[in-house]
Amino acid sequence: MIEKDIKKLSIAFLGAGNLAVNLAQSLYRNGFEIVQVYSRTEESARSLADKVKSEWVTDLKKVTSKASLYIVSLKDSAFMELLPQIVEGKNGALLVHTAGSIHIRIWEGKTDRYGVFYPMQTFSKRREVNVKEIPFFIEAARKEDAELLKAIASVLSDSVFEADSLQRKNLHLAAVFACNFTNHIYVLAADLLKKYDLPFEVMLPLIDETARKAHELPLLEAQTGPAIRYDEHVIREQLEMLSDEPAMKEIYRVLSENIQKRSQGK
Amino acid sequence: MIEKDIKKLSIAFLGAGNLAVNLAQSLYRNGFEIVQVYSRTEESARSLADKVKSEWVTDLKKVTSKASLYIVSLKDSAFMELLPQIVEGKNGALLVHTAGSIHIRIWEGKTDRYGVFYPMQTFSKRREVNVKEIPFFIEAARKEDAELLKAIASVLSDSVFEADSLQRKNLHLAAVFACNFTNHIYVLAADLLKKYDLPFEVMLPLIDETARKAHELPLLEAQTGPAIRYDEHVIREQLEMLSDEPAMKEIYRVLSENIQKRSQGK
Repeated sequence: MIEKDIKKLSIAFLGAGNLAVNLAQSLYRNGFEIVQVYSRTEESARSLADKVKSEWVTDLKKVTSKASLYIVSLKDSAFMELLPQIVEGKNGALLVHTAGSIHIRIWEGKTDRYGVFYPMQTFSKRREVNVKEIPFFIEAARKEDAELLKAIASVLSDSVFEADSLQRKNLHLAAVFACNFTNHIYVLAADLLKKYDLPFEVMLPLIDETARKAHELPLLEAQTGPAIRYDEHVIREQLEMLSDEPAMKEIYRVLSENIQKRSQGK
Repeated sequence: MIEKDIKKLSIAFLGAGNLAVNLAQSLYRNGFEIVQVYSRTEESARSLADKVKSEWVTDLKKVTSKASLYIVSLKDSAFMELLPQIVEGKNGALLVHTAGSIHIRIWEGKTDRYGVFYPMQTFSKRREVNVKEIPFFIEAARKEDAELLKAIASVLSDSVFEADSLQRKNLHLAAVFACNFTNHIYVLAADLLKKYDLPFEVMLPLIDETARKAHELPLLEAQTGPAIRYDEHVIREQLEMLSDEPAMKEIYRVLSENIQKRSQGK
């Protein structure tokens, strides 16, 4: 499969959320043809369709049956509910979903050519990401479809892997930790600073350095702070400082204990 | 106080850990004179002294009484234990500690001129940090010493603040969350990936993007993932995936619950 050929694919998007917007735009800019965007809400459908010069529909029954690749990027619950309608009349086309958390077997027996096209990144409105550096994880029922999806992903990104559903589910779970939980921890730090009239911005060099260290040092060597030093005096005092913040206190306790356990190889 | 004058200070370092090494080197490169380094272990004392062209001692009794500024960067517990010996014979000099977690009043009644010189960053061996971007938090018993310390910090960094001890303790606590806990969460993600034969490196673009978003988006808007979407199906499944990892499961549960609480403004 050469690049000239894969660009002849006609692609339909089902879903127009943050992931779909970033992915569809990247495909469009790399010369792929997006023929249609479906979203339940007109605003989302129209907005993404404008960006990628495609048609848009808000009625699932009006989704084209002529696309060669359908990229389904709906909320997990909506996807499962709408699946019977999604596959209807798409015989011969390749259907993929983009969710890290959904097993490939969800498609089994419903259509012939199916797979997963999972870009592991955090997508927000008002922020475009650099797709070139996003790792894509590919899985497909047929070997030739896996090759096709890998070829497409390789146009968009320098980092393309095959991963089975168990691996991908665990990638997604690891991402929940490294991204969603990390961001929440920033929220907790920001709450604390606000309480003492300190701007959150002072935290940014530390946040950046913590991320940079993950590139350069083994993570256990990069670990600093009272827990890893077994500085019980500071730990006790900090728990006390959180006595009117029970949730933060609980998070502090659980994480500090686990830092110490993990440093002992437990 | 002009820069020419503050560079005439003679500075002694008590402690030669990661923070002291980074701070002393930055002072040295910016033209300050480090006259002596004390550390309990010869290797640390000698290694730092070599870097900043100073004398070194391993006996606290041999610490010079002629420096004009003493920067104490010992472990919290060692500092408190050694404090009586540290202040001995240092009358007239300015003594500061570098720990975010220690109240300024620890010096009270023990010497006349004292303060705190707290660079908020994570310091590791084998990695030099960019001191210019580190926020320094200054406190001193005397107004003129606070000015002096601010002038020194301003030579090293573009980001210098006065903060009282309560603020600084909370800065330090916020840093424990944003840095130490974040790094531990990376460790947990890495553990999970290893279990499923996946390289940790695939996580780095996500880690970087999570940090970058903290610069550009309000943190609550940046929050993504199953908890903030109230995707109970995924949350339940991920908790189940962690059933043989009780510590991770507990951390997952506590953080997911708190993401939902916090999104409701609780």
